[in-house]
Amino acid sequence: MSLNTNLTIALDVMGGDQGPFITLSSAIMAIKNQPNLHLILCGDEIIITETLARLNISKEKFANHKQLSLFATSQVVTMTDKPIVALRSKKDSSMRKSLDLVNEGRAQACVSAGNTGALFSMAHFVLKTLPGVDRPALISSLPTHDDDKHVFMLDLGANVFCDSHVLYQFGVMGSVMAEQVDGISKPRIALLNMGEEAIKGSDHIKLAALELSKDEDINYIGFIEGCDIFSNKADVIVCDGFVGNVALKTCEGVARLVYEKSKAAFNASLVAKVFGSLLKPSFKKLFKTMNPDQYNGASLIGLRGIVVKSHGNANIEAFYAAIMEAVKEVERQVPEKIKNSLEQGLSAR
Amino acid sequence: MSLNTNLTIALDVMGGDQGPFITLSSAIMAIKNQPNLHLILCGDEIIITETLARLNISKEKFANHKQLSLFATSQVVTMTDKPIVALRSKKDSSMRKSLDLVNEGRAQACVSAGNTGALFSMAHFVLKTLPGVDRPALISSLPTHDDDKHVFMLDLGANVFCDSHVLYQFGVMGSVMAEQVDGISKPRIALLNMGEEAIKGSDHIKLAALELSKDEDINYIGFIEGCDIFSNKADVIVCDGFVGNVALKTCEGVARLVYEKSKAAFNASLVAKVFGSLLKPSFKKLFKTMNPDQYNGASLIGLRGIVVKSHGNANIEAFYAAIMEAVKEVERQVPEKIKNSLEQGLSAR
Repeated sequence: MSLNTNLTIALDVMGGDQGPFITLSSAIMAIKNQPNLHLILCGDEIIITETLARLNISKEKFANHKQLSLFATSQVVTMTDKPIVALRSKKDSSMRKSLDLVNEGRAQACVSAGNTGALFSMAHFVLKTLPGVDRPALISSLPTHDDDKHVFMLDLGANVFCDSHVLYQFGVMGSVMAEQVDGISKPRIALLNMGEEAIKGSDHIKLAALELSKDEDINYIGFIEGCDIFSNKADVIVCDGFVGNVALKTCEGVARLVYEKSKAAFNASLVAKVFGSLLKPSFKKLFKTMNPDQYNGASLIGLRGIVVKSHGNANIEAFYAAIMEAVKEVERQVPEKIKNSLEQGLSAR
Repeated sequence: MSLNTNLTIALDVMGGDQGPFITLSSAIMAIKNQPNLHLILCGDEIIITETLARLNISKEKFANHKQLSLFATSQVVTMTDKPIVALRSKKDSSMRKSLDLVNEGRAQACVSAGNTGALFSMAHFVLKTLPGVDRPALISSLPTHDDDKHVFMLDLGANVFCDSHVLYQFGVMGSVMAEQVDGISKPRIALLNMGEEAIKGSDHIKLAALELSKDEDINYIGFIEGCDIFSNKADVIVCDGFVGNVALKTCEGVARLVYEKSKAAFNASLVAKVFGSLLKPSFKKLFKTMNPDQYNGASLIGLRGIVVKSHGNANIEAFYAAIMEAVKEVERQVPEKIKNSLEQGLSAR
């Protein structure tokens, strides 16, 4: 084992519905494509060693590997563990240890495809929020009509209810993500609402709008409706976790429905079947990007460390994408930039 | 003019982005298909007379028409009128008068494609809520994976926030709609939430779940997530107006995005273009049903009269569908059934 790399990420190898074969396959893909990346594999020693052997990394090769090391753990957080139970009784789990490694400075980020609720609770407890941040948020990106652009959306489910100041903080955090990760200068920040008119929506949304518009460092553009999430009108869309979760999962549901119905259209007649088969590959690709929850990783931001959540159902490509998202956030120092932005916002008021 | 029909509906002819040509074309289609239907056309006398003449109903023919009559009004609620302004200063508008006709018992229902906020305020003010109903709700149906079934969803935007008892009432009202309009016995009622587990979501959603599960006349099946709106797991999905509005408009946004992207896929190469053109009609049909907000009418329920809202952008077919929805609700006596169900629920507690 060698730590002669400048980028270290802890992986919760045991998390996710699919288990170590997926997470380790993604890990191998990541270190091949990112030569300066070191991955700490948290999980059951025997399972990890055996799975790596199946993936052509023998026990000996693993022991001397320059980019992979093991952190043996004895517990696994299951998909049905309640957050509070996982937090209290799974202190030697692969999930918890990968967070501990970030907290101790031994890793710069961690990636997990495990139980979402447990990951939130543990990450919040272990890493704590940044100064100026009341609540962490789950952020991910969605496609837009413009193939080259996507839109960040937060919170996607870390918090049920968010007051106006928390929504304001989400705006600042989203702005930093869009600027640092996507290189957008002056990202357009919008609040998700029932209508575009200023009189619409709840009081706390109107207050958040006021607070965002007062911050000169934020390019606040106003309210946006659900139908315009994908219109490339905004770079960042802010909402509370309940609304964000419903919107994200509704996207998933609509994408699935359209996919099923278009398959039926392709099979409606022999002619359609023949012609449809020629178009199927491009449709498959389209629906994959329409399922952001499964395709992209989501990041839990506002904490003192970087935590990327991959979908429980993630395949090799998706978990790989989550690792690369973590790499990007480490390189761009996202938590530090969020802290600075919130401090600037506070001192300007 | 003759009132020898047993079904009278007031139309806000002036409402909607497209104006009287659309609403009157739909009206003519409706009376042709429904011989016992009488429509009271509320709006500007000259515009209505001239538009009908363009549609082959001369002034004389109109004056003696058995199924059409005029209620001349001098004002129009515009799409940008604020609800409170419309309520106070547009008392002789086509929208207001069509509601007044329902209130006075001269029409059994009204249909409008006008300004949504103004219609809600006016309808609430003129018709008042049924006994046992705290807030009216906007309800519509969405497609499911099963071609023969759809799912009712409420509230789609009449109320920003709804407490647990209001959500319970929405469950009862939705149950009546599914039973009366769709003939489903023991409709499956679900609450939209962030997860299916009973521990998730806000306190008022958990309390609403408790209240719904206690009502023996309601077939409450638990929480449902956004991804399962279209899965035919429930017949009625209950949520507050903010969440429902975001979910509905997100559907619209996703449908538009997939439609645009699939058009691009069809045009990606000459081969795809040729084959795609053969599949386009079935795709167009698919995306039309995926845009429930524009395709179906939505009903404002919980009031002492029937109010159906058509989309501002409705075409002839869509506004016709809204009129026929009103016919159905009159025939099935929806308001009376809602009142009875809520009284039963109250007396059982």
